Amino acid sequence: MLSSKEVILVLRRRLFSKSLSLSYENSDPLLIVEGRGCYLIDERGHKYLDTRNNVAHVGHSHPHVVQAIQRQVALLNTNTRYLHPTMTRLAERLVRLLPDSLEVVFFCNSGSEANDLALRLARAYAKGSENTIVMDRAYHGHTLGTLQVSPYKYDHGSESIHTNPSHYYKVPCPDTYRGVHRDLVTAGTMYAKYVQEACHHFQSKGEKIRAWIVEGGMSVAGVILPPKGYLSVCAEAVRAAGGLYIADEVQTGFGRLGSCLWAFQHNDPAITPDIVTVGKPFGNGMPLAAIVTTRKVASAFEKCGIEYFKTFGGNPVCAAAGVAVLDVLEKENLQQNALEVGMYLKQQFELLQSTIELIGDVRGSGLFLGVELVRDRSSLEPATAEASFICSILKSKYHILTSIDGQYDNVIVIKPPMVFSKTNAVEFIASFRQAVLLDLPAVDLTKTSFTPT
Amino acid sequence: MLSSKEVILVLRRRLFSKSLSLSYENSDPLLIVEGRGCYLIDERGHKYLDTRNNVAHVGHSHPHVVQAIQRQVALLNTNTRYLHPTMTRLAERLVRLLPDSLEVVFFCNSGSEANDLALRLARAYAKGSENTIVMDRAYHGHTLGTLQVSPYKYDHGSESIHTNPSHYYKVPCPDTYRGVHRDLVTAGTMYAKYVQEACHHFQSKGEKIRAWIVEGGMSVAGVILPPKGYLSVCAEAVRAAGGLYIADEVQTGFGRLGSCLWAFQHNDPAITPDIVTVGKPFGNGMPLAAIVTTRKVASAFEKCGIEYFKTFGGNPVCAAAGVAVLDVLEKENLQQNALEVGMYLKQQFELLQSTIELIGDVRGSGLFLGVELVRDRSSLEPATAEASFICSILKSKYHILTSIDGQYDNVIVIKPPMVFSKTNAVEFIASFRQAVLLDLPAVDLTKTSFTPT
Repeated sequence: MLSSKEVILVLRRRLFSKSLSLSYENSDPLLIVEGRGCYLIDERGHKYLDTRNNVAHVGHSHPHVVQAIQRQVALLNTNTRYLHPTMTRLAERLVRLLPDSLEVVFFCNSGSEANDLALRLARAYAKGSENTIVMDRAYHGHTLGTLQVSPYKYDHGSESIHTNPSHYYKVPCPDTYRGVHRDLVTAGTMYAKYVQEACHHFQSKGEKIRAWIVEGGMSVAGVILPPKGYLSVCAEAVRAAGGLYIADEVQTGFGRLGSCLWAFQHNDPAITPDIVTVGKPFGNGMPLAAIVTTRKVASAFEKCGIEYFKTFGGNPVCAAAGVAVLDVLEKENLQQNALEVGMYLKQQFELLQSTIELIGDVRGSGLFLGVELVRDRSSLEPATAEASFICSILKSKYHILTSIDGQYDNVIVIKPPMVFSKTNAVEFIASFRQAVLLDLPAVDLTKTSFTPT
Repeated sequence: MLSSKEVILVLRRRLFSKSLSLSYENSDPLLIVEGRGCYLIDERGHKYLDTRNNVAHVGHSHPHVVQAIQRQVALLNTNTRYLHPTMTRLAERLVRLLPDSLEVVFFCNSGSEANDLALRLARAYAKGSENTIVMDRAYHGHTLGTLQVSPYKYDHGSESIHTNPSHYYKVPCPDTYRGVHRDLVTAGTMYAKYVQEACHHFQSKGEKIRAWIVEGGMSVAGVILPPKGYLSVCAEAVRAAGGLYIADEVQTGFGRLGSCLWAFQHNDPAITPDIVTVGKPFGNGMPLAAIVTTRKVASAFEKCGIEYFKTFGGNPVCAAAGVAVLDVLEKENLQQNALEVGMYLKQQFELLQSTIELIGDVRGSGLFLGVELVRDRSSLEPATAEASFICSILKSKYHILTSIDGQYDNVIVIKPPMVFSKTNAVEFIASFRQAVLLDLPAVDLTKTSFTPT
């Protein structure tokens, strides 16, 4: 007779598409039934240290967030066509966390919807132009609209994504480890030239630009932070060409980098985007996302005369979760925690790097870190199978959940709940060290097929 | 000093775009703080009978749904990359409610996302074709993709919606009251001819068709049910041309029409769509939506090799809400209630129609009814101001919430929670009667400006 886990697995394979991947599918996928802080717990009561779920921003099942949801759902959960105090309170608090000129809020349900709407507002602002500057390796969502600005997806499949490819101009990801420009002093300027060229490309055809959309910290690209000066030089060029700078903070918003509240501020503290999109961590797992923009952009959209209304967006229950997340973020000083624990974690990985050749690069800030594994530090040959093995063994032997991303699936992306403690960091580092130094040499990866987990 | 309601109103106007409309904005918008069954309750404790919120499918704050959410959110709310029993249970139950060949489920957060994904799957199936047959007056969502199939939006503003308009072919809404074909016996065949022509249009250019997307009951169009035979004749033509029939059940799914579980079955009981999308009522207010399709369509999508994953879609908390909704629907026999109460309500409106000239048409099924108001039964001049006045007075004097839609904003659209009782119906009819016979004659609508509420 099948165990309940086996039954669920059989049902999942029957009822869902193979295109929805299951973590650790090739080893032993997890049946997770409970979450507490930085831990996920399976059906046998085994606890797994979670270094990968940036959605549970203030920790899995945080009591303050749980109670806020429980209280609100018992009272009311309806749409934003009525007044509700929580909806306005959340918008007010969100706006207060952003640069002054960003003052108009649109709620929606997911980061995909937020970025889709941002592109829509930008099109209205650009009087119908669809011309968009897209970052290589970027991911901005799963809608038909956002897929067109997501090379991370469309460069790796046969799906026909663009109705009119000439509207989309892809510029290189400002990767200072593996990209063409690696000098940290000049990389910002050098990579910005591609965006300037893109502007020139459209301008020389006499065409307007809709937008340039970029993540403050590129997550699935393998934790790429835009180098110093990059964002401001690019934003200036895009605006001079009449387009908008859309800052996607879906992965990195709300203090994850420790140094600042928003990733776009990390290397350009004074910059102000035209639209900021937030999602994942905003509701600690509840579907909640938003865009915040300037009065000018909102007005351009309003002039089109089409009502914008989302049935669920900003509803009292999801908004209550959002307010509670902001409460906890502030009260528990989680941005500071991200800064301190992140700094310790990064230093420890750098220490490992000094003796372990496999660790090619350690990068990022706060609790948004990338550890890139290579087989050779000169050729940068990606250690994809090694990364996959380490990810698998960390889960099965050490009960630690990690994620892998980057163009060669060789970057360990660290983005745990923001309550990740120094004790958690110590456990993670010790286990990672053992996985690399003891477990990895014991397997013959040439004989083992490790597909990315 | 401002009351807390006034403060919220001021903040709302400052923080949100004017493009997000507020119900009763021009009279006295409501601050709603509580919901119970078919009632919404304002900050003063005034109860309003809700005839318009089809999202609160099993009633506002239904205890079974509330408890399911409260229990689950205290335990875990994470993504579908881990196994979870509620996700598979919900998919299993959803699939059981649909025709046999619809067996693969994709969860997402909103009807917009569901329809957007449906169009994407259809494009993969049609090997990249974007050619789509669109219903006039239809609404399928707010994403850049779904707006292209939503004339309800794009025909009423200056927003530039289509990248390539030639991919979209609009056919008339099969309106048997106001449209060109009004003979109920032949209307299905006559209106289907436009869809056949659309197929021919693309075929004659040697092009594939992606899809024909149509609501089982067209809601914002003013409660238009496809006439007998229409769906099956159209679906056959579309399939013969290689395209898919996408049935949008976001507004009407889960038994609302009383006669059947899905609106597409109402006049064509044996029909099977290629993709069915569900949303609004699925989570009783929690962001939850899904598409269900055939193995063949899912396979075509999988072959593109791009992973599909939604951070929040089908998470344990929203899935728990979905399971609880299905429990209540079954246990409280709500489809049967919709049938009986809806039949009573429709008969009562037809009785009023026999003496009140203003009521031009009463249509729909179950708890999905439309009452179309006209100034003249021959010319069908829409009674837009009258509808707006009635909607306003029903709210302010009788504490009943109604909604208005249709191309001339003259159709009272009735789609209350499915627990709407005969007592609620009696109250609604009596108040409506008074509003029309006593209150309406007392105002001079030519001197009063009533914008649609």
